[in-house]
Amino acid sequence: MSSYPYNRLDKNDAAVLLVDHQSGLTNLVHDFSPDDFKNNVLALADAAKYFQLPTILTTSFENGPNGPLVPEIKEMFPDAPYIARPGNINAWDNEDFVKAVKATGKKQLIIAGIVTEVCVAFPALSAREEGFEVFVVTDASGTFNKTTRDAAWMRMQAAGCQLMTWFGLACELHRDWRNDVEGLGTLFSNHLPNYRCLFTSYNATQAAVAAATK
Amino acid sequence: MSSYPYNRLDKNDAAVLLVDHQSGLTNLVHDFSPDDFKNNVLALADAAKYFQLPTILTTSFENGPNGPLVPEIKEMFPDAPYIARPGNINAWDNEDFVKAVKATGKKQLIIAGIVTEVCVAFPALSAREEGFEVFVVTDASGTFNKTTRDAAWMRMQAAGCQLMTWFGLACELHRDWRNDVEGLGTLFSNHLPNYRCLFTSYNATQAAVAAATK
Amino acid sequence: MSSYPYNRLDKNDAAVLLVDHQSGLTNLVHDFSPDDFKNNVLALADAAKYFQLPTILTTSFENGPNGPLVPEIKEMFPDAPYIARPGNINAWDNEDFVKAVKATGKKQLIIAGIVTEVCVAFPALSAREEGFEVFVVTDASGTFNKTTRDAAWMRMQAAGCQLMTWFGLACELHRDWRNDVEGLGTLFSNHLPNYRCLFTSYNATQAAVAAATK
Amino acid sequence: MSSYPYNRLDKNDAAVLLVDHQSGLTNLVHDFSPDDFKNNVLALADAAKYFQLPTILTTSFENGPNGPLVPEIKEMFPDAPYIARPGNINAWDNEDFVKAVKATGKKQLIIAGIVTEVCVAFPALSAREEGFEVFVVTDASGTFNKTTRDAAWMRMQAAGCQLMTWFGLACELHRDWRNDVEGLGTLFSNHLPNYRCLFTSYNATQAAVAAATK
Amino acid sequence: MSSYPYNRLDKNDAAVLLVDHQSGLTNLVHDFSPDDFKNNVLALADAAKYFQLPTILTTSFENGPNGPLVPEIKEMFPDAPYIARPGNINAWDNEDFVKAVKATGKKQLIIAGIVTEVCVAFPALSAREEGFEVFVVTDASGTFNKTTRDAAWMRMQAAGCQLMTWFGLACELHRDWRNDVEGLGTLFSNHLPNYRCLFTSYNATQAAVAAATK
Amino acid sequence: MSSYPYNRLDKNDAAVLLVDHQSGLTNLVHDFSPDDFKNNVLALADAAKYFQLPTILTTSFENGPNGPLVPEIKEMFPDAPYIARPGNINAWDNEDFVKAVKATGKKQLIIAGIVTEVCVAFPALSAREEGFEVFVVTDASGTFNKTTRDAAWMRMQAAGCQLMTWFGLACELHRDWRNDVEGLGTLFSNHLPNYRCLFTSYNATQAAVAAATK
Amino acid sequence: MSSYPYNRLDKNDAAVLLVDHQSGLTNLVHDFSPDDFKNNVLALADAAKYFQLPTILTTSFENGPNGPLVPEIKEMFPDAPYIARPGNINAWDNEDFVKAVKATGKKQLIIAGIVTEVCVAFPALSAREEGFEVFVVTDASGTFNKTTRDAAWMRMQAAGCQLMTWFGLACELHRDWRNDVEGLGTLFSNHLPNYRCLFTSYNATQAAVAAATK
Amino acid sequence: MSSYPYNRLDKNDAAVLLVDHQSGLTNLVHDFSPDDFKNNVLALADAAKYFQLPTILTTSFENGPNGPLVPEIKEMFPDAPYIARPGNINAWDNEDFVKAVKATGKKQLIIAGIVTEVCVAFPALSAREEGFEVFVVTDASGTFNKTTRDAAWMRMQAAGCQLMTWFGLACELHRDWRNDVEGLGTLFSNHLPNYRCLFTSYNATQAAVAAATK
Repeated sequence: MSSYPYNRLDKNDAAVLLVDHQSGLTNLVHDFSPDDFKNNVLALADAAKYFQLPTILTTSFENGPNGPLVPEIKEMFPDAPYIARPGNINAWDNEDFVKAVKATGKKQLIIAGIVTEVCVAFPALSAREEGFEVFVVTDASGTFNKTTRDAAWMRMQAAGCQLMTWFGLACELHRDWRNDVEGLGTLFSNHLPNYRCLFTSYNATQAAVAAATK
Repeated sequence: MSSYPYNRLDKNDAAVLLVDHQSGLTNLVHDFSPDDFKNNVLALADAAKYFQLPTILTTSFENGPNGPLVPEIKEMFPDAPYIARPGNINAWDNEDFVKAVKATGKKQLIIAGIVTEVCVAFPALSAREEGFEVFVVTDASGTFNKTTRDAAWMRMQAAGCQLMTWFGLACELHRDWRNDVEGLGTLFSNHLPNYRCLFTSYNATQAAVAAATK
Repeated sequence: MSSYPYNRLDKNDAAVLLVDHQSGLTNLVHDFSPDDFKNNVLALADAAKYFQLPTILTTSFENGPNGPLVPEIKEMFPDAPYIARPGNINAWDNEDFVKAVKATGKKQLIIAGIVTEVCVAFPALSAREEGFEVFVVTDASGTFNKTTRDAAWMRMQAAGCQLMTWFGLACELHRDWRNDVEGLGTLFSNHLPNYRCLFTSYNATQAAVAAATK
Repeated sequence: MSSYPYNRLDKNDAAVLLVDHQSGLTNLVHDFSPDDFKNNVLALADAAKYFQLPTILTTSFENGPNGPLVPEIKEMFPDAPYIARPGNINAWDNEDFVKAVKATGKKQLIIAGIVTEVCVAFPALSAREEGFEVFVVTDASGTFNKTTRDAAWMRMQAAGCQLMTWFGLACELHRDWRNDVEGLGTLFSNHLPNYRCLFTSYNATQAAVAAATK
Repeated sequence: MSSYPYNRLDKNDAAVLLVDHQSGLTNLVHDFSPDDFKNNVLALADAAKYFQLPTILTTSFENGPNGPLVPEIKEMFPDAPYIARPGNINAWDNEDFVKAVKATGKKQLIIAGIVTEVCVAFPALSAREEGFEVFVVTDASGTFNKTTRDAAWMRMQAAGCQLMTWFGLACELHRDWRNDVEGLGTLFSNHLPNYRCLFTSYNATQAAVAAATK
Repeated sequence: MSSYPYNRLDKNDAAVLLVDHQSGLTNLVHDFSPDDFKNNVLALADAAKYFQLPTILTTSFENGPNGPLVPEIKEMFPDAPYIARPGNINAWDNEDFVKAVKATGKKQLIIAGIVTEVCVAFPALSAREEGFEVFVVTDASGTFNKTTRDAAWMRMQAAGCQLMTWFGLACELHRDWRNDVEGLGTLFSNHLPNYRCLFTSYNATQAAVAAATK
Repeated sequence: MSSYPYNRLDKNDAAVLLVDHQSGLTNLVHDFSPDDFKNNVLALADAAKYFQLPTILTTSFENGPNGPLVPEIKEMFPDAPYIARPGNINAWDNEDFVKAVKATGKKQLIIAGIVTEVCVAFPALSAREEGFEVFVVTDASGTFNKTTRDAAWMRMQAAGCQLMTWFGLACELHRDWRNDVEGLGTLFSNHLPNYRCLFTSYNATQAAVAAATK
Repeated sequence: MSSYPYNRLDKNDAAVLLVDHQSGLTNLVHDFSPDDFKNNVLALADAAKYFQLPTILTTSFENGPNGPLVPEIKEMFPDAPYIARPGNINAWDNEDFVKAVKATGKKQLIIAGIVTEVCVAFPALSAREEGFEVFVVTDASGTFNKTTRDAAWMRMQAAGCQLMTWFGLACELHRDWRNDVEGLGTLFSNHLPNYRCLFTSYNATQAAVAAATK
């Protein structure tokens, strides 16, 4: 069997594109529960920050019904390039956006946004066409329903995009817990409630036994 | 048609019983996504605090595999009666617990816990037997799967428990937005991501128009 | 087996209460697809109009993030009592609303709204307490998810509310096609796409055969 | 609000009826995954044995396509009354069965079987008619699909049967962990894989810390 | 615990009402797969015939888009009272229908039809009001979707209707296999494909062993 | 990583093929709710009209049980080529159809129809074989159930068809809101009820603030 | 865009392989309802017969628990090659089977069986390796659950198998209704209950109008 | 159509990698029921043992919250290479692990683990890059939810991994029942409850007939 090149995320070669996570558009997302979706988007943002990946923000018509960028994200990336697109639906059609992407000098692009089949898929396909490696963060990208999502995923897969989730992405970027156990642990504890419970139980048992054996 | 007495939640006559929201047990909950469940439980706790309802905490075997009470809850209610049951599965079988409940002097009991068919249903049925009005916060109570949940709900319904959710509970307790618009709005904004987005969009539009018309 | 009194909808004794079908709140509804929910709400409104049932509109904080009453509904009932509640969450806590309800002189109340467990359930339970017959239009009432809906339905069922859908309601009110075949047929054709297709196929076949046999 | 009598399972007053858990009939069960169903049935059987509840086995046409009683169950209760019904579909129509039930002298009957709407519901309703308290173990009872199950549950609920699961049943019977921590823990560890994992993690941490602090 | 009267189906005291199983209306049913629904309806019809229950057929506007009664049913009951209602939506509003029902002299009514919340629920509630025992064959009754079905079931349950399925009904009517093993076996084999497979396997093994041991 | 050619929809190079959206066939569609499906099909038709794409209509046996083309579509495209196929199941087997397609001079074909695995997949595969770029509008194409749909999607994906939805298609064709904000906004408002609500809320807030600041 | 060769089913170049549709194995299928599965398998068999495709039957251990070939299939193909494999799990490992396949001289193989990931996938992959075109009839192939099915489909898709359903297969083979309207119509009427209803409605209307216009 | 090389599992050329089946991590798995998952993992382990495949165990941070390797697995493979990774998330980044893999001399790698998109996908992609044939045991690999799973499967499929299940794997390895009927039968009987029931029924019938014909 022929081998397959594993295009693996590398924190030194990756940039994050957050596309249209706006308050109005968020209310159109029906393929995740609101809690799940909020958590996934903020987890991706936290991961981008934690790995110090160059991050680019863009919005579509943020003064209209689409609403402003979700404030939490805006606050996390105060110095990030921020392209409020005047009308281009595909962010890649906006020169400033592409310029900002290319200015990062990275060849791996991590993309998430609302809605999946448009704001994510369009720049993903454009980036693929220009030879970038594209990693779609599927669970930080939302759309109208699961049927729409399925079609969008299949179109992106066929174009050579890699379908990821925020957790897989963080793990692939980190590579080795020893690089920073506490930092990664905190990221997971904050965004994986069940993992947090494992930590809680573990720490409690440790403390109890330690106390008992003193 | 005969009328039906509406046993309506009254913030002056209600107490909250949080039963066995422990780190180990939380990992057994499969009828909600972890994000949804964490959000619901903390929303209920926030509501209890916001309405200053007497709140009673209890745990089962917290030094064993069941794990300690989820730390967020423990921190929110530092002065609440806290009954670490030495073995009683039904909290109502524990004298201290019942004493604490009765000490509140309330006749409406709001109950949530893990797992639904045991830690919630058992004290709920016991309380019904003693004539309390019982309000089960269904979405802050979790269990192994939806089949188990359905059976537990039907058993409690048959016993005259009222099936609520944290949001319905908060609304029924608050009664009128004018009692405190900001307080209730903050509670909702923190635990209903889509409602938060409505606020965000609304405020942005308001600000923009105000700025434009200055 | 003892008999059971069939509290049957009677177009001469029924009023419709549309509670908080507002643009912002609509975006919180996740237990129906947006198309289904829009269709159901407008179908109920059309039915109310068709049967000339006294209809009462009410909203909660319509100048804030909850948004205005959906325009289609406002336009359909220009002369209906319209109570923009200043803060009462349970519409029944608003004197003007209850006055308007009682002014209809009807003892059957048809209720729908957003969200089910609050804006529908609260006035439904209050009305039951005062001895009204309550008919909840479940498919024109929406909420955050199916778990919440299930709990709300069970609470209302336990209180003696009758769970209906817009189609069942229209049929129970109409009683006999001969009262107006075309009117009811139009209502169904406009809101049941598959029924409309039955009409289309039927008419086409009729026309074709008639033409052929001329 | 009027109080409600909590008919609580009492290990001194309960008998278990296992109805038609036969190899052929098991293959008709489609409302549980095969692994889940097998586990639930054996968990119920283990619980019956653990609490030393009088247990009655019965089968329908076991020499035909329905197949023999599942061997694991037969082996667990070698001395239990075993009624191979010659044709009665409702086990309660079989005199020997009813005689065996009454011989236990218990007034609480725990029933599970295949299929839910027949082999469980029929004797459950018959027993209710004779004044027994009936506890249906819903997750150790299977049938053709979820629609059938839903209907069966609602019929039994309406007849005053209490809908339980094997875990709720075991907890309600045991009442207090202190009666036997190890025994109940073993039962749960054997039939709740996730609970078993909690034990494993807990014990490992304990051992590790203990070793470290030696 | 107070006892509960088990209103048990009795083949000497039951009549079957098949309401509006028409070709057009069948195409509106979306809460069952078409194969499942067809099978369930024909199974009920076969059962009615097998137990020689008086059966009443009725249709609504069968010359219009609703279409004619499904031919298979018409052929099975050539001599059954057949009421083509001129317009009454609730079959019970049709004097001929009620007359036919009462002419059977039965006090147990088995009802199925399309759609559940109208053609089934309305006559079911009317019959309950007149003191009949009502058995709804839920799986031979179809409607637009599961939400509608759930509401209809809950309304009928609240009115004291018993929710059945065709298989439960056949078993409750037959009571004892010994009354006619082959007849009931054939009914099941024709409408439960998996049961048929049990027969096939059983017979094959029997034949093989018999042959081998000759 | 090798680049991938993004075959992007171009309104100057695309034609729309609406295949067999007939009243009878529509009643066979069970993988969408009727409201969703009707909305999706009309949204696609509106988009085709809005972008002035050459559109070709075709039907199969429209004088038989398949029924006539849905009237709404017929009225929207009075001058479109209309091929009532005399028997070819694959529209591409019909010379007139292919001639009409080729007469558009477009190399991008947008296809939707009933049923997905036949009326859509067959011409889609035929067009791929002749070198056309094929865009399947998955949500305006319906079939018997989700299993059938999944298989059809995978077959078409493997053949290089791009899986789209009507919303993604409209966005990819429009490219830039500035080309016509109002036109695209109207299209979305008419077919995305939740987007419409965003507009409603936004406009109301704008008007209110403007009025207040006058 | 490069073109793609449409390997289209051709009734002159296709053979059907029915693999292990045995009574015991059928009872293991849980990814379809029993009615749906039975209908799909018999529909495929009817189609094979209708198009007079060479059909090959094979079974695995039919004298053991797997049970005999479903009798309906055996009776439909009395003269078909019938390979009762003595032990080969992959039918393609059986020389007689491959010989029978090759003796048909066809290069398109239509495969269905139980269970999908083994009895279907193994010979499908083997046939692909030898250069056959493989068409998997997904809905006449069953397995333990949907997860297993999904994995099996993806493995076969990756190997170049085309995923079909019995209806798509029949349509692709027939090509043009004019080849035989009645024959194909009968096939569909017998296995698509909703299509049958379209025929029924159509014929009834035709007859009624014809009678009226006489 | 070009042929496709069937990379078929060969028991002489395959090794099994069990990655991070640890007690803590197991509690994070939500895409299977706990019973199903436990059964699948142990079935894979039993199969590995039965086919005497070289098996490699590895864990991540087993002394922390992730917990120890599930004891059942540890006991089954006392002599297997066991790599407790000090921090590498991708097992393939651990030299000892890769060394152990290569020491087996096998070119087919069977991989399962927790969680699918990380502990399974990462080494799977790395192994593909080095030219190994990779077989993912999808049902013995678990993760947070179905969305995450779907994305992981699609990423691995795109990289040429073959998606298997434990049952398909066992069948592909065994090839012919005659190699050992009893051994394979025992494996299936222990892990496929419904298959076990087929055996039970078969044996019972055999015994009965044999007895009868003696």
